[in-house]
Parts: sequence; C-alpha cells; structure tokens
Amino acid sequence: MAKVLMIGAGGVATVAAFKIAQNADVFTEFMIASRRKAKCDKIVEDIHKAGYKMDIKTAQVDADDVEQLKVLFNDFKPELVINLALPYQDLTIMDACLACGCNYLDTANYEPKDEAHFEYSWQWAYRERFEKAGLTAILGCGFDPGVTSIYTAYAAKHHFKEIQYLDIVDCNAGDHHKAFATNFNPEINIREITQKGLYWEDGKWVETEPLEIHKDLTYPEIGPRDSYLLHHEEIESLVINYPTIKRARFWMTFGQQYLKHLEVIQNIGMSRIDEVEYEAPLADGTGTAKVKIVPLQFLKAVLPNPQDLGENYEGQTSIGCRIRGIGNDGKEHTYYVYNNCSHRAAYEETGMQGVSYTTGVPAMIGAMMFCKGLWNTPGVHNVEEFDPDPFMEQLNKQGLPWHEIHDGDLEL
Amino acid sequence: MAKVLMIGAGGVATVAAFKIAQNADVFTEFMIASRRKAKCDKIVEDIHKAGYKMDIKTAQVDADDVEQLKVLFNDFKPELVINLALPYQDLTIMDACLACGCNYLDTANYEPKDEAHFEYSWQWAYRERFEKAGLTAILGCGFDPGVTSIYTAYAAKHHFKEIQYLDIVDCNAGDHHKAFATNFNPEINIREITQKGLYWEDGKWVETEPLEIHKDLTYPEIGPRDSYLLHHEEIESLVINYPTIKRARFWMTFGQQYLKHLEVIQNIGMSRIDEVEYEAPLADGTGTAKVKIVPLQFLKAVLPNPQDLGENYEGQTSIGCRIRGIGNDGKEHTYYVYNNCSHRAAYEETGMQGVSYTTGVPAMIGAMMFCKGLWNTPGVHNVEEFDPDPFMEQLNKQGLPWHEIHDGDLEL
Repeated sequence: MAKVLMIGAGGVATVAAFKIAQNADVFTEFMIASRRKAKCDKIVEDIHKAGYKMDIKTAQVDADDVEQLKVLFNDFKPELVINLALPYQDLTIMDACLACGCNYLDTANYEPKDEAHFEYSWQWAYRERFEKAGLTAILGCGFDPGVTSIYTAYAAKHHFKEIQYLDIVDCNAGDHHKAFATNFNPEINIREITQKGLYWEDGKWVETEPLEIHKDLTYPEIGPRDSYLLHHEEIESLVINYPTIKRARFWMTFGQQYLKHLEVIQNIGMSRIDEVEYEAPLADGTGTAKVKIVPLQFLKAVLPNPQDLGENYEGQTSIGCRIRGIGNDGKEHTYYVYNNCSHRAAYEETGMQGVSYTTGVPAMIGAMMFCKGLWNTPGVHNVEEFDPDPFMEQLNKQGLPWHEIHDGDLEL
Repeated sequence: MAKVLMIGAGGVATVAAFKIAQNADVFTEFMIASRRKAKCDKIVEDIHKAGYKMDIKTAQVDADDVEQLKVLFNDFKPELVINLALPYQDLTIMDACLACGCNYLDTANYEPKDEAHFEYSWQWAYRERFEKAGLTAILGCGFDPGVTSIYTAYAAKHHFKEIQYLDIVDCNAGDHHKAFATNFNPEINIREITQKGLYWEDGKWVETEPLEIHKDLTYPEIGPRDSYLLHHEEIESLVINYPTIKRARFWMTFGQQYLKHLEVIQNIGMSRIDEVEYEAPLADGTGTAKVKIVPLQFLKAVLPNPQDLGENYEGQTSIGCRIRGIGNDGKEHTYYVYNNCSHRAAYEETGMQGVSYTTGVPAMIGAMMFCKGLWNTPGVHNVEEFDPDPFMEQLNKQGLPWHEIHDGDLEL
C-alpha cells in the first residue's frame, strides 16, 4: 500500500522501525538509510529476531549531502521520507524531497549547527514550494512536539470553544542507574536545555534565563517533580494555530543530579558548540593532524549512548497538556490529557527506553496517517493542522494510550 | 659562571625563568626551549619588560624525541638541563642528558602516559648510569616534592634524632574567581587526584579509595580547611631516606565546588586517559580524519589555562611539614615548618599565580645549588639527600620565606 524511506538509525528510528514492521498492512515497502549502514542492518536483524517478517532494505547515505539523498530517493522512489536523522539535516532532506517528488515527515525542527536555537521559520519557508509540487511535509510528529500538539488539537475540536491557557508538561521519572546520561542525543539535549527559556503571554514572547522558572508539578502515578520552564518548538505553531491562547508554556522535569552535571559541563566548557583547533594522532598511526572539534560533539562520543540505557531503565515518563479555557457550554473548564509510558515495557517491546519509544511511535503513526490518505494536504504543516481523531485512535492501539482528567486542579 | 638550558614554557617555567634572570650572577648563560618557540620568546619578552636585562636564547624542541634533544644539547652544551616539561618526558630528557654529558634537574617524577601512576622506580633506574658518567640528576625540586623534602631534611639535621611521624600539608586557599580551573596542568592535576590514596605506615604502604580520608586541618593565616589524603611522590623517597618514619602522609585541601566538578568530570567520562576514536574535520578544510583523542587531554584544551589565572587570583597557599619525633634532647617534640605564598604577590612579580610560583622558585634554587657546586654528587638523587642549609637560606632570599612552630598542636 505504501513505500516509505526512513533516514536515521538511532533509538527513535529503531522504535519507529519496529512499529512500521508491526503495521506491515500499511507499510508495504520499507527502507532504512543512515550514515552507517551497519546500524541499519542491526535494526533489521533485531526486528527479525523479535519475530517480525517484513522485508526491509537498508542503505548508506550522508544526510548532509543533498546530491547523495537525491540519488537514493530516485533509486528507491519512496512516497514518504521519514526524517529521524539530526535536526541539522532537516533542510537538506526537504530539498531532496522537493527535487525527487517525495513527501516528508520529521519529529524535530531544523536548527543550524553553529547556533543553539530552534524555530520553524526555516522550514515554513518551504510551504509554497511543497504546495506547488503537490507534496505534503508533516513537521514535528514525535511526542513533544507531535502528540502534545495533537492533544491540543483534540481538546480544541471536542472540548473547548476557546483554549486560553496551555501548559505542556513533560516528566521523565525514570532511573537508568547511570551517574549521568541524556535520554536522547546528548548534543541536541544539552543544546536545548542550556538555551534561554521562552514562553508566550498576551500576544508576545517572554524570555527567561536558562532554567530560571521552575515549580513542583504533580504527575499521575509519579507524584510531585520539580519542573522547569523551557522553550519548546510546538509552542511556536500552537499559538498561531490557536490564536485564543493567552499563555502557552512548556515544562520539563530535571533531577538535582542531572542539573549538577549540566552545570559542570557548562563550567568546564564541554557544552561549547564552537570549534576548537586540536592536534591529535591519526587513528591509522601515520602521524598527527590538526582537526576542528566541537566540544559538545566530542562529549557525545564519551557519554553513554542513549540507545544503551534501556536495559535497566525503571520508572515511567508522563507527558501531557494542561489546558484551561471556555468549554462548549460557555463556562470555564480545565482539561488534562496525558500518556504515561513505562521504560521497561518500551524496552521489552523494542529494545529502547521510553524516551525513544514515545518519539518513535508517533512518527510511525504520522506516517500511517499520510499513507492512509488521512493527512495528505500539499504544503508544509504542523501536526495540529490535521484531523486529530484518527491519530488519537491509533495512539491507543500502538502502545501510547492516553487518559483525560476533566475539571481537575492543573496546578498552573 | 654556569650555562643552563630550561625545557618547558608553562607557568612554572615562566617563574623559574624570572628567578634565573634575577640571579644573573649565578646563571651566566641561559636558554629556554619548548615545543612552541613562540611561548619561549614571550617569556623572554615579559622578563625584559619587567626590567631584567639578561640575554636569553630560545629554541624549539620536542621533548618526546631524544634525537631532537641531543641535537639541541650538543649545540648549546648546557652544564645543567632544567626539566620543566611534562612528567611523561622525564626519561627522554634524562636519556639525552646522559648521551650529551649534561646534568639534570626536574620537579615532578616520571609517569607513563597511559597509566595514572607515578613512582620513582623509572628514574632511580638511571642511578648507575649517571654515576658512571659523573653526572648529577636532581629529582623533584619544586615545592612538593622539593621544599617539603628539604624541610624534612632540615628538621632531621637540626631538630630531630628520630623523625617518627611526617604529615605534609598543602593548602591552596586562593580564589581565582572561575567556576572551575586547575592550578597547574589540568591533565596532570586530575590524574593525580583521581587515583587511589596511599600512605606509609609501620613499614608498608596502605591504599585508600580516591579522596576517602579527609579531615579539617588549620593553616596559618587561613584557618581550617578540609584536607584530603593523597598519594604524593616525595613520601616514597622520604621513608627510604628516613627509615625511623613510622607513618608518612600527604594532605591537600579541596573545596566542595572543586570536588563537585571533579566528580562530574569523571562521571561524564572526560577524565579518561585511554584513546577514543573520533572523526573530525581537518583544520585546513581538506576533509575529515579519524583521530585518536584522549578525553582528559582534550578537556585540557577547553579548561582555563592555569597560566591565565594569575590576574585576579586572591588569597594564599600554605604548604609545610608537620613532624613528630624524638628531639635531640631525647624527648618527644613536634615541629611545623611552612611557607605561605600570596597569589597576588606572585603575580605582581612574575605574572603567574602562587602555585606556579611555589614550584618555579625552588627549581631555580636547586639549579643554583648545582651551579654553585653545593649539590653536585654524580648519580640520581632526591633533594633530601643534599645539604638543606644553603637551600633553606635561599628560600628566604628568593621569595619563599619559611616559618617554624615548635611543639605546637599538629592536629595529626
């Protein structure tokens, strides 16, 4: 029924590949490509070991290189390209999609490599070109952004005449039993957390110092956790698509141990994203070379690989939207919609921990929405622009069931 | 009167060069050589700017390369080589000294690059060769080892029939106003602190976990500071040269902020001294190369340079020996001999902070002892094997005056 190409072979990609293999009635032809083909082959091997019989192709591609991408796309001819590579590579992949007539889906918005800063402007600039080409680009279809945006769209469609206050709350109450590790690509994670906070209020953006604003929030089945206001990309499109929103914020939990490590990583200069000239011996033993090293990228090479955290990961994540506004009855209501995901259950199903699972499953569902013709509108779209109902239905079927609390205390 | 060659151009070398220039009556010909000649030229420029008129030569040399060292030694023909390079390079420099008939002095004992471990055995193995060649090698002539060993020799010569308990105490109560910085080469510093503790008791070595044993000790003009038992190299030779010692330990102060940073540096893998394969773009823009990077060495490249700490460094260091034993009167006595050094005064005189100053000044005095013919005995010697009196006299003249407390409370 549909031919999809996934780019990336990390934890999120592994989960998405497992879920694609579980939905072979929708995804009839599937290829995984990444910089290192061996990582793609390993995913396929693991999927087959787990008992799924799908025939999956693999390929090597450098996603920084539009020409390489074009050769691959023209060869495999996918209807949809699922981009689970690095956010730096969104634009090269979108360029190649336009050149080759492929539709596009990603989970994280573009950021330039030399600036810790994310916003949709770069990708929204592709709207007209995708529209003219009759191609659909679906942006930010992981959990947050992704499910949180769809939760908001669902609330707007079914429960609110006017959404006024939106707080997206993201808690990871898991314990991976390591002194320090990030739950996804440490480079991207640390860039996100060390930048300034930002939220929307009364028609404008308010900036805060990094991690300046925090408070205890209570998460279902978990309890209270110190939660920090961060800038997160879905706010940017949600306040445009739901102009009745008076205030929109994003909160994420961090433990003291995590923050201590983060503080030191910054103090010692290892979160720097500029290049340092460094002379090092060549691996082949033929002498030394002057190379340029980005400290944060090198740190990634010595930190635990997020893909290896799954085995002893206990506890669960809890991510949701806390919404206040005017209900269809004209009265003020609150609404909390959320999913709790167990790291252990995620690991048992896919070999990956909950943070990869909660991002990889929605990516697959988004691809399914496109392949079924349900989310198929030429142009560049954030996920809340599509019908949330079939997506919400699939969340319950594909391992990320959601729960609702009406008129509870939002704490916010 | 004497021709000396100094290898190294860091903070300690800068101080030693200033002090050599201040004693031009002893050091009549002087050359500074290091991997980067520009650093040597900068030291000479600073010395001349400060008003010292000595004519100082400079040269480029890779101290890992015995052949390069030999060419340099044969060309300049120094009587004494002052090794203020890295501890990894002690043996190549000693080899070159033997080959070229040069005497030798250093401040830190050899350690192999791939093992965080120091001991004198490697250098003591050169004893016979230096003796046969009629050459003197003076080992460990900084502050600790160095002055602390000479303090012990002075105590043994003048105040004790039998030294029984020796505690070397090293306090840095300075504040450099940086979140984290090491006071000397961070690579060497972190290797030293992260290895297991070791002390001598009742004729054998006792090992501790890293930083396991600590207690508050009170330092003159400073007050109480939490002090940690570390292994330190001078203990190794002192218990051999003073066999009446029942227990010998070394203590160093660390603040909570410093230890927190150290803990995280270890947790995130940046204190590793094994090689990590890493692909990085070449600095000349011609592509990428696979290089081998030792995380701790790369960390050094992003941490503040200890040589740059001087400007706003406040407070002082206090290093000394706390000794208990049988005095010349046959009764038990205690003796505390120490120096306090002001970071600001060190900076005003040499442009370097107190930790560099307290190491560089004794290196110069040791060289002076050799050049004056006072410490000139073929073989390989630790500094306590020489007459301490002329050295102690120079300490008072050269900026590191010492103070004594007889029969006080040692706290230990």
